Amino acid sequence: MRDVAIVGAGMTRFGKYLDRNLKSLTREAVEAALQSAGIDKSTPQVAVVGNAAAGLAQGQECVRAQVVLRDMGIQGIPMINTENACASSSTAFQLAWLYVASGMYDIALAVGMEKMYSEDKLRVYSLFTAGTDVEIAQQMLAMMKEQAEKAAKAKPGQAGEPGKSRSVFMDIYAAGARAHMERYGTTKEQFAKVAVKNHHNGSLNPHAQYRDEYTLEEVLASPPVAEPLTRLMCAPIGDGAAAAVLVAADKVARYTTKPVWVRGSAVASGTDSRQPGIGERVAQKAYEMAGIGPEDVDVAEVHDASAPAEILIYEELGFCGPGEGGRLIDDGVTELGGSKPVNTSGGLLAKGHPVGATGVAQLYEIFLQLRGEAAERQVEGAKVGLTENGGGMVRFEAAAASVHVLSR
Amino acid sequence: MRDVAIVGAGMTRFGKYLDRNLKSLTREAVEAALQSAGIDKSTPQVAVVGNAAAGLAQGQECVRAQVVLRDMGIQGIPMINTENACASSSTAFQLAWLYVASGMYDIALAVGMEKMYSEDKLRVYSLFTAGTDVEIAQQMLAMMKEQAEKAAKAKPGQAGEPGKSRSVFMDIYAAGARAHMERYGTTKEQFAKVAVKNHHNGSLNPHAQYRDEYTLEEVLASPPVAEPLTRLMCAPIGDGAAAAVLVAADKVARYTTKPVWVRGSAVASGTDSRQPGIGERVAQKAYEMAGIGPEDVDVAEVHDASAPAEILIYEELGFCGPGEGGRLIDDGVTELGGSKPVNTSGGLLAKGHPVGATGVAQLYEIFLQLRGEAAERQVEGAKVGLTENGGGMVRFEAAAASVHVLSR
Repeated sequence: MRDVAIVGAGMTRFGKYLDRNLKSLTREAVEAALQSAGIDKSTPQVAVVGNAAAGLAQGQECVRAQVVLRDMGIQGIPMINTENACASSSTAFQLAWLYVASGMYDIALAVGMEKMYSEDKLRVYSLFTAGTDVEIAQQMLAMMKEQAEKAAKAKPGQAGEPGKSRSVFMDIYAAGARAHMERYGTTKEQFAKVAVKNHHNGSLNPHAQYRDEYTLEEVLASPPVAEPLTRLMCAPIGDGAAAAVLVAADKVARYTTKPVWVRGSAVASGTDSRQPGIGERVAQKAYEMAGIGPEDVDVAEVHDASAPAEILIYEELGFCGPGEGGRLIDDGVTELGGSKPVNTSGGLLAKGHPVGATGVAQLYEIFLQLRGEAAERQVEGAKVGLTENGGGMVRFEAAAASVHVLSR
Repeated sequence: MRDVAIVGAGMTRFGKYLDRNLKSLTREAVEAALQSAGIDKSTPQVAVVGNAAAGLAQGQECVRAQVVLRDMGIQGIPMINTENACASSSTAFQLAWLYVASGMYDIALAVGMEKMYSEDKLRVYSLFTAGTDVEIAQQMLAMMKEQAEKAAKAKPGQAGEPGKSRSVFMDIYAAGARAHMERYGTTKEQFAKVAVKNHHNGSLNPHAQYRDEYTLEEVLASPPVAEPLTRLMCAPIGDGAAAAVLVAADKVARYTTKPVWVRGSAVASGTDSRQPGIGERVAQKAYEMAGIGPEDVDVAEVHDASAPAEILIYEELGFCGPGEGGRLIDDGVTELGGSKPVNTSGGLLAKGHPVGATGVAQLYEIFLQLRGEAAERQVEGAKVGLTENGGGMVRFEAAAASVHVLSR
């Protein structure tokens, strides 16, 4: 396969945009990416769009890419609609890369987009059930509703808690965190330090949904979600879009003097067995393709949908040995100024997590870092970057995961 | 890119399966494809699944592939979920082909699946709006509802016709048919002959949803839908699944002595201009890749969502000149025994059209034809086959279209 580089990328600030639709958000991100690459909308030869929830959230199924891209005047070219829950747009990125790496096209557009926020909270929560087997999710929701009704009967006058469905994923994250605490002695404070770090990084990122800093005490004292998770340890709901332009090696010089090369691209699905888990498998595949190991990674963006997840991902990516993730955060290895900064963008916790936009947004951050354009959060001398993006849940492992290795 | 062949394929009979879910239908099709290839479920290295409506129809978004494939024990491998309305699984097939042609994987599974039928007809009709820009569709539906209410007021006691939304696509097909009649003198009888031919072919196909034959008079006398369309000129609603196994050239001999080679694979999206239209553009691209022309095609499966569409597609594919499609059907060129049989499976009209399953089901028919395994509907000596699959509608052209050229 041919070498492929990212020659331009862009994103919206993530946030809660009640007054903007998917077309508006995507237009902003795509125009930023085209401008960054110095091309116009007629140049890309193929577009791959990742989105998770527009079918349920906006009733827009089937031809999401065509609807949003033709609105801004991109038309005629092959358009591929793909979804893989929270890993939708890293999957889209792999397909865009494949179209170019294979030799089929010379220049491809990869897009991630999502509009989740709504004032109807139940509607927002219901989107999460779509990331799993809906037949099982419906059984779980029915059980929760029954329990909420029982509780309401037991305490007359109190409403039930149908919104509990929200915590399906967070319950699973919390259970994983508790298992890690029991097995390795990892502490709630170590998880909280991840949130402190990522909120600090987010405060430096103009595209981050939340830009406030928090102390360790504030993270621990924020409202409990599911032990050991507090609200500030959980990624928020949001809207946004991100886009990247990929070009074949022999055409790169036309567009930029600072290409960011795609060295490894891996996607995997979960299994019923945990040995080896999806995280280890997908990282191994990406490292092999790139011909590097975890010791070579200078900066990474990972899927911190909850703070403990980041600790577990350190281990899955081989940034430390099993059970050593807590030490990594204690030692400051993964903070700005450390030897291997992680989630310099603020991660999902602070930058936000508009599900289908997250994968390409992670690649956008690494694109900036490897070009030395990350301003206040720049990792000095960063040469190799990595993104890790997980998605959905079928049975007891992520349904999808993707790792990309990039280099300048 | 490497040469790639289909070494196995399978499908369910299309039909209305109130008692079966997507898992059950997909399992049947995938098991048939694996058996046809002589492999077990652990052999494919990547799976690409096309589906259009499960988000709206079953509430199953995001991880459709993982949910259905893990249920039958396929897990761990990269799984790509893709949609492109009625062209969802031909798009999935292109991606599966690309994974192998690029050298990334040696053996890939392409799947199409759909479950549309429901006793709630309004729910079924609502699925069709998802194949277009939902913001526009919602305006159209609101207008139709208003008109139906006005009509009900004008004739007190009569119910309105909210089900009219169904005819959004059929109205567009009918308008295209009328324009062809005016411009070229094509007749309603010529359109009806397409339906007679395809229902005859369907009567020979054990996988066809409808296996009854109809005379020209019966087609013309069936209930009117939108002039000149009658019900027997429109594809039915249905459920089903289809699957194919793709293998790199240097591994093909392990699996079969009768490979069916993928010679051209093209996907395109529509434009606001009709010159050249999406059909001509996508066919041209596929012919170029295959190094052949329309004169070389021995057998084709095309997207006859309505009978007139088949006539228009003859012209788009270059099977005849502009305006000559009517003559082609009159001369029997495209019937079994003619020089270029089209829709030997019965096409969408008789085999059925479970939207996301259609693309791979078309490839299944050509796979059989090129291996000489199409039994009573075999095209003798067929060496080159073609599939054409269209999907969705954004503004006034198909949102997506795909053409594949295959050879033995």
